[in-house]
Amino acid sequence: MEGVTLTTNNVWMMICTALVFFMHLGFSFLEIGLTRQKNTINILFKNVFIICIGLLLYCLVGFNLMYPGSFIAGVIPDYFFNLFGLSAPFKEGALDLSYNEGYTYWTDFLFQGMFAATAATIVSGAVAERIKLGSFMLFTVLYVGIVYPIAGSWKWGGGFLDKWGFYDFAGSTLVHSVGGWAAIVAVFLLGPRIGKFNDKGEVQAIPGHNILLAAAGVFILWLGWFGFNGGSVLSADPAATSLTLVTTSLAAASGGIAAFVVSALIYKNYDLTMFLNGILGGLVGITAGADLMTPTDAILIGLIAGGIIVAGVSFIDRLRLDDPVGAIAVHLICGIWGTLAVGVFGSKAGLTQLFTQLFGVLIIGTFCLLTAFLFLYTIKKTIGLRVSKQEELQGLDKHEHGMDAYPDFRLNQH
Amino acid sequence: MEGVTLTTNNVWMMICTALVFFMHLGFSFLEIGLTRQKNTINILFKNVFIICIGLLLYCLVGFNLMYPGSFIAGVIPDYFFNLFGLSAPFKEGALDLSYNEGYTYWTDFLFQGMFAATAATIVSGAVAERIKLGSFMLFTVLYVGIVYPIAGSWKWGGGFLDKWGFYDFAGSTLVHSVGGWAAIVAVFLLGPRIGKFNDKGEVQAIPGHNILLAAAGVFILWLGWFGFNGGSVLSADPAATSLTLVTTSLAAASGGIAAFVVSALIYKNYDLTMFLNGILGGLVGITAGADLMTPTDAILIGLIAGGIIVAGVSFIDRLRLDDPVGAIAVHLICGIWGTLAVGVFGSKAGLTQLFTQLFGVLIIGTFCLLTAFLFLYTIKKTIGLRVSKQEELQGLDKHEHGMDAYPDFRLNQH
Amino acid sequence: MEGVTLTTNNVWMMICTALVFFMHLGFSFLEIGLTRQKNTINILFKNVFIICIGLLLYCLVGFNLMYPGSFIAGVIPDYFFNLFGLSAPFKEGALDLSYNEGYTYWTDFLFQGMFAATAATIVSGAVAERIKLGSFMLFTVLYVGIVYPIAGSWKWGGGFLDKWGFYDFAGSTLVHSVGGWAAIVAVFLLGPRIGKFNDKGEVQAIPGHNILLAAAGVFILWLGWFGFNGGSVLSADPAATSLTLVTTSLAAASGGIAAFVVSALIYKNYDLTMFLNGILGGLVGITAGADLMTPTDAILIGLIAGGIIVAGVSFIDRLRLDDPVGAIAVHLICGIWGTLAVGVFGSKAGLTQLFTQLFGVLIIGTFCLLTAFLFLYTIKKTIGLRVSKQEELQGLDKHEHGMDAYPDFRLNQH
Repeated sequence: MEGVTLTTNNVWMMICTALVFFMHLGFSFLEIGLTRQKNTINILFKNVFIICIGLLLYCLVGFNLMYPGSFIAGVIPDYFFNLFGLSAPFKEGALDLSYNEGYTYWTDFLFQGMFAATAATIVSGAVAERIKLGSFMLFTVLYVGIVYPIAGSWKWGGGFLDKWGFYDFAGSTLVHSVGGWAAIVAVFLLGPRIGKFNDKGEVQAIPGHNILLAAAGVFILWLGWFGFNGGSVLSADPAATSLTLVTTSLAAASGGIAAFVVSALIYKNYDLTMFLNGILGGLVGITAGADLMTPTDAILIGLIAGGIIVAGVSFIDRLRLDDPVGAIAVHLICGIWGTLAVGVFGSKAGLTQLFTQLFGVLIIGTFCLLTAFLFLYTIKKTIGLRVSKQEELQGLDKHEHGMDAYPDFRLNQH
Repeated sequence: MEGVTLTTNNVWMMICTALVFFMHLGFSFLEIGLTRQKNTINILFKNVFIICIGLLLYCLVGFNLMYPGSFIAGVIPDYFFNLFGLSAPFKEGALDLSYNEGYTYWTDFLFQGMFAATAATIVSGAVAERIKLGSFMLFTVLYVGIVYPIAGSWKWGGGFLDKWGFYDFAGSTLVHSVGGWAAIVAVFLLGPRIGKFNDKGEVQAIPGHNILLAAAGVFILWLGWFGFNGGSVLSADPAATSLTLVTTSLAAASGGIAAFVVSALIYKNYDLTMFLNGILGGLVGITAGADLMTPTDAILIGLIAGGIIVAGVSFIDRLRLDDPVGAIAVHLICGIWGTLAVGVFGSKAGLTQLFTQLFGVLIIGTFCLLTAFLFLYTIKKTIGLRVSKQEELQGLDKHEHGMDAYPDFRLNQH
Repeated sequence: MEGVTLTTNNVWMMICTALVFFMHLGFSFLEIGLTRQKNTINILFKNVFIICIGLLLYCLVGFNLMYPGSFIAGVIPDYFFNLFGLSAPFKEGALDLSYNEGYTYWTDFLFQGMFAATAATIVSGAVAERIKLGSFMLFTVLYVGIVYPIAGSWKWGGGFLDKWGFYDFAGSTLVHSVGGWAAIVAVFLLGPRIGKFNDKGEVQAIPGHNILLAAAGVFILWLGWFGFNGGSVLSADPAATSLTLVTTSLAAASGGIAAFVVSALIYKNYDLTMFLNGILGGLVGITAGADLMTPTDAILIGLIAGGIIVAGVSFIDRLRLDDPVGAIAVHLICGIWGTLAVGVFGSKAGLTQLFTQLFGVLIIGTFCLLTAFLFLYTIKKTIGLRVSKQEELQGLDKHEHGMDAYPDFRLNQH
């Protein structure tokens, strides 16, 4: 009997793993679609690198760091000091099926490994079109290899945030905000793309070169979220998984509709990019409590996330931060909203929970801001963060890769 | 024991739900690929809107309307008169797992909700490049919110067509023709795109701007049909689901080959668009009886569907109807063919069944034609259906959205 | 009890089937992305034809040929002489669920049918931009209809290679090399594209027209490999399937990183195409023994495969063979490497196994080289293999299909 339960659960988890893997194509499409053609190969290179190195790092370091046996001083996963030691990347007896009722050790590793790379992907969108490839790759190694798993260990690895009652079902904070905090630091240290703000500091739109691609990316991401949230149930429990898929989809739908309606009312325009980011905002917003909400709760969380997106994109612009894909509004701001929403809606709602959630947001935020700043500032002062002015103007594809993405098409250079 | 059966069934249904969701990207790709670049954002906007509003409407209205407890006068789902009342969108005790052996209440809602939006997507393709966005959105709300679930209730909700023995496994009639009937009304009321027919009434081809995208759309749709038909078994029963996938794939393959060969014989040309529409015709054709057919039956149904596509596309042209993507031939004509094929091939074949199928086609057809005409004619006479001539010539992207889809590429305007 | 086990296994196998189907879109994207825009429709036509005819042929001939009851002279599947007889394409009692513990007869057919078409797809990439469509289609029918299933029967159908202990888990040899051997014959008989080598015999790069598409293809192929290798377990056994997914993904990741690093060291360039082909090389390399390896083994196999790709692409160039997508390096050379790796790494490693693997490679290679040469040489001497010089220069889309793939875009002809 147990064998069949494990098999069914494991099948579900493996499919969810495949769907989360596929999100990396969605993120790539979104980032490329919303930027200029001259940086296409560079963006692809970053994203292909992220998934490859992310998996390898998670195998070598991250998995053990994120799910340690115990903590030193309650904060540092004990595996940390084994990092350069002789400890094996995988535990002995990995094929021991008594490991878990929901999935095997290998499924656990692969599902969590697919998550790990996501944090770097979020940063990738925000720093697009001006970051040095080598610097970005170095930062990815450090952030995905060390910061992401340590932050995750505090909740998902059974650390102090978990003990305090902090709740983050599938990672509004632990994945999306972790990426979002680094994104805001990186955008601040990099500065805006040439031409994003004019001499008076006014925003100049830099249109993405393929809106179709951005929309396809959002469809793929929504599909991937079936696995991202559905798999975070960590079993195929019918009630929990199916409710999670319903709340996830309804929040996506209402987030999109809200962003479309609000932006249409304010800007008198049917803005597809806003619609798409509203969907993503709804998805990020529901992620912290997708298993706790009723459908009505989910629709409300999505509607608010959609409104936040419209305000958030404009707010980031007003801060003179240049985030080409809206990653900060989507992943950081809606990630915070989703985490707090666990204290406002659903079966855990309450003032104590709300404060615990806020605490978790602040602690993870502080840790991410500090580490991201430490890494990025050091990189900036040593090998440099930003490509030369000429390279930025001509495009990173030509300089870093010596190739054009679309050699058969006649292009407008801008 | 029951728990494991339910879990396995539910896993299958959730995956099928994800695949049907993904079909919306397939439909978008197909429609965009077969039309001009100047309307890309508009088409994306329509399709993103359809999936979002479709899910929300199905949550608020459609699900209860389509699966009512009982009918008034045998035709009107009793929920209809609760629509503006106080009844909850979801039944009490939704998490009661005794609901069904095949899946949970939430899975049922989400799977059926993904179907609901499809009907509007079919219309979207037929009216592309000239319909007003606001008018299309209004029509979508009415058609997906009311017409689709009422028509569906007559068979899938246990209504009179079901009692008469009408058979429609996964929706050749209930989904594809329901969309197709509205498409033909809309195309008739809209009139052809400027330039589609010259002064003598001869057809002028308006080539799609990205055939690659159309082909990718068909691949995605075929993949999605694994869920569309496979999930319509409503359990993971190994024999029924696997036979369904086999008949579905063989009909797709033979539909494609037939359309390719027939069109090559007639037009002396390897016509990729015809090949692709043949695949879709085979898929729509097998949908009504995918669980009843042998592989040989499926191949024959597909071959006939492929031939119908070549004849159908030319027939629609001769009627001076302008259907940019061939939606009427694919979804309406092959939908009718598939529904009738249940009386000709497979385990239910027989004259009585054939007449019952024909009856069902006519009743659903009449209902859809009347309601679609009522809605679309009213919209035409009030807020208008069609964009201005200038807007159509310059493209809907510029006028309705103030954006270009491909700003970095140099384009031919036509 | 057995019922639930079968159901769960069957669900997994059906999902894997869907993922392998989707690989055909990945192969299409890769091939189109790495070639010129003027042959886009032609490439799509080939690939859509391959999946359609592949499934139909596998239904009519291949399935019975590949899994025969017995062999004549130990080599010829007994079904071979029934080919033009009266034997039914499908066995009686196909719905008899005692067929297998892992899946139904129909699932078996469809999963294996999706594999069958892959061999032809591999050839398609190597012969792109210059082969006659009719000739390619004829070759596909012969190779997929006869050669692939006979070669497969020797191992997977219980033939002599299986009895000798040859191991090929998911087809490094039986699928990838079978395609690769035909590719090298076809490339040799066709000759290089006009302009690939200059008068001095030096390589002239012919850049692909859409690198984004190539990258998307690789993401889709990686996703599909979850099904390709995961389904080759032939059940949902949790330990075996999840380990297989882990080894598959780690080999892909390390193959990509190795190809990127090696090519960066040699060519002082961040070469995305090499990175992508490294991922594919890692995937092909792990395929023969994905269920036998530890994660560390998988990483090592991938690293070596990545290095092989960089050397292999350059080696094929030096042989003056023109393989536009690198199919020979990826599928043939890494296919051989993966097959041999079963004798070097993992639980079957040993000198006897290594020689058995080498034997299998040589026997299958000889059979494929001979049959591919027989078919292709006959075609060359009768109806011809290669399009005219004018047709090649103007593009196959215009001549064979009378259409442009991207009529709204302004293009550079080259």
